[in-house]
Amino acid sequence: MSITAPQGFVAAGVTAGLKPSGRADVALVRNLGPSMSAAAVFTSNRVFAAPVKWSRQAVADGQLQAVILNSGGANACTGPEGFADSAATASRVADRLGLITDNVAVCSTGLIGVRLPMDLLLAGVDDAAASLAPDGGPDAARAIMTTDTVPKEAVAEGAGWSIGGMAKGAGMLAPGLATMLVVLTTDAELPADALQGALREATRLSFDRADSDGCMSTNDTVILMSSGASGVTPGVAEFTASLTALCQDLARHLIADAEGAAHEIAIEVTGAASERDAELVGREIARSNLFKCAIFGGDPNWGRVLSAIGVTDAAFDADDLDVSFNGVMVCRAGQIGEPRDLVDLSGRHVRVTVDLHAGDRSATILTNDLTYDYVKENAEYST
Amino acid sequence: MSITAPQGFVAAGVTAGLKPSGRADVALVRNLGPSMSAAAVFTSNRVFAAPVKWSRQAVADGQLQAVILNSGGANACTGPEGFADSAATASRVADRLGLITDNVAVCSTGLIGVRLPMDLLLAGVDDAAASLAPDGGPDAARAIMTTDTVPKEAVAEGAGWSIGGMAKGAGMLAPGLATMLVVLTTDAELPADALQGALREATRLSFDRADSDGCMSTNDTVILMSSGASGVTPGVAEFTASLTALCQDLARHLIADAEGAAHEIAIEVTGAASERDAELVGREIARSNLFKCAIFGGDPNWGRVLSAIGVTDAAFDADDLDVSFNGVMVCRAGQIGEPRDLVDLSGRHVRVTVDLHAGDRSATILTNDLTYDYVKENAEYST
Repeated sequence: MSITAPQGFVAAGVTAGLKPSGRADVALVRNLGPSMSAAAVFTSNRVFAAPVKWSRQAVADGQLQAVILNSGGANACTGPEGFADSAATASRVADRLGLITDNVAVCSTGLIGVRLPMDLLLAGVDDAAASLAPDGGPDAARAIMTTDTVPKEAVAEGAGWSIGGMAKGAGMLAPGLATMLVVLTTDAELPADALQGALREATRLSFDRADSDGCMSTNDTVILMSSGASGVTPGVAEFTASLTALCQDLARHLIADAEGAAHEIAIEVTGAASERDAELVGREIARSNLFKCAIFGGDPNWGRVLSAIGVTDAAFDADDLDVSFNGVMVCRAGQIGEPRDLVDLSGRHVRVTVDLHAGDRSATILTNDLTYDYVKENAEYST
Repeated sequence: MSITAPQGFVAAGVTAGLKPSGRADVALVRNLGPSMSAAAVFTSNRVFAAPVKWSRQAVADGQLQAVILNSGGANACTGPEGFADSAATASRVADRLGLITDNVAVCSTGLIGVRLPMDLLLAGVDDAAASLAPDGGPDAARAIMTTDTVPKEAVAEGAGWSIGGMAKGAGMLAPGLATMLVVLTTDAELPADALQGALREATRLSFDRADSDGCMSTNDTVILMSSGASGVTPGVAEFTASLTALCQDLARHLIADAEGAAHEIAIEVTGAASERDAELVGREIARSNLFKCAIFGGDPNWGRVLSAIGVTDAAFDADDLDVSFNGVMVCRAGQIGEPRDLVDLSGRHVRVTVDLHAGDRSATILTNDLTYDYVKENAEYST
């Protein structure tokens, strides 16, 4: 059910013909209220797509009534005409559903630098508007897929309220938002500023710590809408915790389905002087192509981990660093530890643990290995 | 002739048995004087190898009489014992040649986290000391190779003086020194501080701008020794220009032979507000795995270039960016420019030009594509 699990939402996913594959490519999510509070976070890339520009404006007043999403084209680097296309898409949704255009957010994903075929898209909007249903969440989740192999959905239950979510994103996955589109819905009754605070915290601890390939997209968007239909107002801390857990679940789904990946890697950095240091070290390791190739090759190459740590300005002494692969401490105090051949990296899940011995803070970064299939997918197909 | 082209140097390259391949693995370069002025730059990685620690101390007084280098083991992350091994190696060279131990620099390259087989290495030192010859440069250049497929040598001629150089490095190539060992020799007569100034400038404009795979090594070392044997003291500007050109030549050799690369890519950033901005933008593009895969696939994917530029804090307006691949401006003013199919990326050399339209400074970063063979080499072999 995902995004239609909470009360007060309807959704649809239809095929407009934007993708050569003929798969579903337009999704629509409508908030039936009574509340229309909303929050959003967007890519921090300074080259951002027209729909990001549009949606930033749309959500600025803390209110959204609907989100229209398309795969099959990112509408990025398309100039003023591309922005007009996003505006026209929102306007069409508003027309069909009797909403205010400025309350409709727009998300696009696909190839950069290509105009959207607006005749097809607008017809798809009409179709989606006519198809909205209380059980339309799964259809919407499928319609936003690009190179994803499975739809990503999640639901969290509170006391009398719930949160639903859907996500897409399989490549160009990197910090400051993994490349992706995420729509979150809740029937909890919370004002926009509470939603925004909760969303910032949740994304910081989830999507921001998923870094598949170090490449930040122009289109990343996470939107949270509240219908208030449950009539329940949970505590902000309780809601934030629930939202964070749900976003972490979706982030794991994204890493699990990353393009060409053979391993899902959790890099846990402990003993850091600050959470920022822990994140920084984890991210630098996650971005080392040599490390990522070693995991693909089943090699617990701690030298590549140490050389990645060494380029950061995090607090540590090189002679204190411990590194474990799947629980085997192959590097102790910056030197040779347990024998490498005790480590088994044949499974899909790998946990690398780094102890900086410089404090008591920690963070976990999720990433993937670097494989032939990653190169193949990204050499053969434009994104 | 390379490092033995300038007067006053002898060199050797021998096989000590450090490498399973049975290829040459120990090189020795001796400065016969009359001057023994020297300068060096080292990796900025905070996790640095024992020989780096040793050589920093050795060159601190601006004097070196010899450099001993080994492939087949990096002697990194080997603790106090590893440092003692470097000291013992320098001491053996000094004993055999009648030099001062503190005037002998040590360089090592190979697998991190493994002790060197000192019995083999010290026997190799004896052999190298006995083999020193005025035409030994090419042997030395071959003995420092790891995954390099060809030795890298260069010579520059001044008015009555010359510079010679040799380099190794094919993976873990990244800024703040591409992963590599470089020895430079000159018979020009210059004091250590002039050499150090010239070397800093030359490496900044050459090796620091070669970024094959974004991974910085623990062992990078560039050493410059002056014999003064020509009796000629060139102007510092003239010497620096010559040294810079020679280092740029060696940097091109490194990128040309990078592990698994199918393309040599020059990313030229123009119209930058500062040289720092130009470098930053070039480096960010060079580190985008999606961009690197696109080049491998022959795809002039300018969207991936723009999305990489967008994560930097360089001065630019996203609506002003021009991007050309091999002279075809596929992105003009941040939007679709010439048709992509006018671009031919089938050759080995690719030039990507980015105009930021924010000033008049520029820089060129050299890099490689991301290929199946890169993954294969780095997944199957430990480094």
